Amino acid sequence: MTQQLSMNLATLRNGSSFAQMVDDCLRHGVTAISPWRDQVAAVGLAEAASIVKANGLRVTGLCRGGMFPAETAAGRQANVDDNLRAIDEAAALGADCLVLVVGGLPGASRDLPGARQMVNDGIAAMLPHARASGVPLAIEPLHPMYAADRACVNTIDQALDIAAELGEGVGVAIDVYHVWWDPKLAAAIARAGREQRIYAHHICDWLVPTTDMLLDRGMMGDGVIDLPAIRAMIEAAGYHGPQEVEIFSRDNWWKRPGDEVVRVCVERVKRVANGE
Amino acid sequence: MTQQLSMNLATLRNGSSFAQMVDDCLRHGVTAISPWRDQVAAVGLAEAASIVKANGLRVTGLCRGGMFPAETAAGRQANVDDNLRAIDEAAALGADCLVLVVGGLPGASRDLPGARQMVNDGIAAMLPHARASGVPLAIEPLHPMYAADRACVNTIDQALDIAAELGEGVGVAIDVYHVWWDPKLAAAIARAGREQRIYAHHICDWLVPTTDMLLDRGMMGDGVIDLPAIRAMIEAAGYHGPQEVEIFSRDNWWKRPGDEVVRVCVERVKRVANGE
Repeated sequence: MTQQLSMNLATLRNGSSFAQMVDDCLRHGVTAISPWRDQVAAVGLAEAASIVKANGLRVTGLCRGGMFPAETAAGRQANVDDNLRAIDEAAALGADCLVLVVGGLPGASRDLPGARQMVNDGIAAMLPHARASGVPLAIEPLHPMYAADRACVNTIDQALDIAAELGEGVGVAIDVYHVWWDPKLAAAIARAGREQRIYAHHICDWLVPTTDMLLDRGMMGDGVIDLPAIRAMIEAAGYHGPQEVEIFSRDNWWKRPGDEVVRVCVERVKRVANGE
Repeated sequence: MTQQLSMNLATLRNGSSFAQMVDDCLRHGVTAISPWRDQVAAVGLAEAASIVKANGLRVTGLCRGGMFPAETAAGRQANVDDNLRAIDEAAALGADCLVLVVGGLPGASRDLPGARQMVNDGIAAMLPHARASGVPLAIEPLHPMYAADRACVNTIDQALDIAAELGEGVGVAIDVYHVWWDPKLAAAIARAGREQRIYAHHICDWLVPTTDMLLDRGMMGDGVIDLPAIRAMIEAAGYHGPQEVEIFSRDNWWKRPGDEVVRVCVERVKRVANGE
């Protein structure tokens, strides 16, 4: 089943280099990855693309574009410019999509509808270049606890509304950590499938208790998310791409060797996420 | 404007007695309170009711019933029994409503739909006694970050769906902390008004950063919630009752004297929440 697993390289933030992370993946039969821009920049885009090509890796996404809101028009334009560069990087890597974490309230603003409009405007501004480059844009709705400071798109339905407004080339990355609580989850995933907008499926787990709002995500099976149930919804909606493991875990998994982390991810995807 | 402010006594968890908290409120012209059951129990129900009556206080709610899910039928029945006692306490205090924090996943369960069904069943089981006692039940949707361990009802719409299923005597307590992020907030509040289900309006603020998921709520004005905008939605929906200040703040407001906390609440409601 390892062909159904992609390793989001944020899971391996233990100080390893890009090449080491790829080696850790390959050693366990994982041939799909999703790197972050800073990880690509650290090795250099050309070298990263070369490693991807030489090893026949699938790049299920590049993390991340987005962060559109800013207090000034110049700030918003700078954000769009950075997103245009992210598109080029995604294209160079042959990524399936560019994941967008859209950003929260700019500065000291309390204007959430205004921030959300800035997101729409920002995606609209980058979309022509994304289409011309063949890079699908995957809006990742983030958990509502990040609405203020990381992403003011907080449900699948909200992301799909943006995609419907903007048209072709915009979809969603469904990360279970962010959406598992949604009482309308089944309907939203079904809608995403009907509208052919599911571009990625990220997994991890929600720990009880959660000790840090950002950096205490759990390994699949260590928390309370019903991963097989959500995967079933996603497959019923027509998406059969890899499950991408993305675990921010400062005090646990980020302290372990990449070899161990990948090994455990592979085992957990088989046993927990796929219910084998 | 102090007649529009109710003090949720959870805001004054600094070791004060029930009578001291009431004195702190009255000193600043606050004549509405919403106590917690443990605070009532500490002074005794009869004495608490006597203090309420002697001072002509309005009790805008009793916090809290709920916590329905349990792993066994006996556990769920025990939870219902406790809720029946909460109804009696609310009636003795003349509370406007009994606030329900419905509970999360029982035990090691990952069955969120199952937990939600237990909530429906639990409210249905207590509803006849609530109606007979003249105690409205206010479901408080909690922020999705509490879905696992405190409340699996996480949006106003979800609470209204339960209320619509169960009928008369079930409504919602709208706490800005839990719902401010909801992209469908305006529509949900308007629906709550149309269905005449708004029983309470709680306020505080969302701090950036938030350092504790439960006990780091902010004083109105210290965070990012657009309180006047949400109040306008609620009044447009036909609810003109008090704004109830409920701030869990272990490391800040709970360390201050009640006199100071009430004084600041009164000032902030005038300046921030009402925009005077």
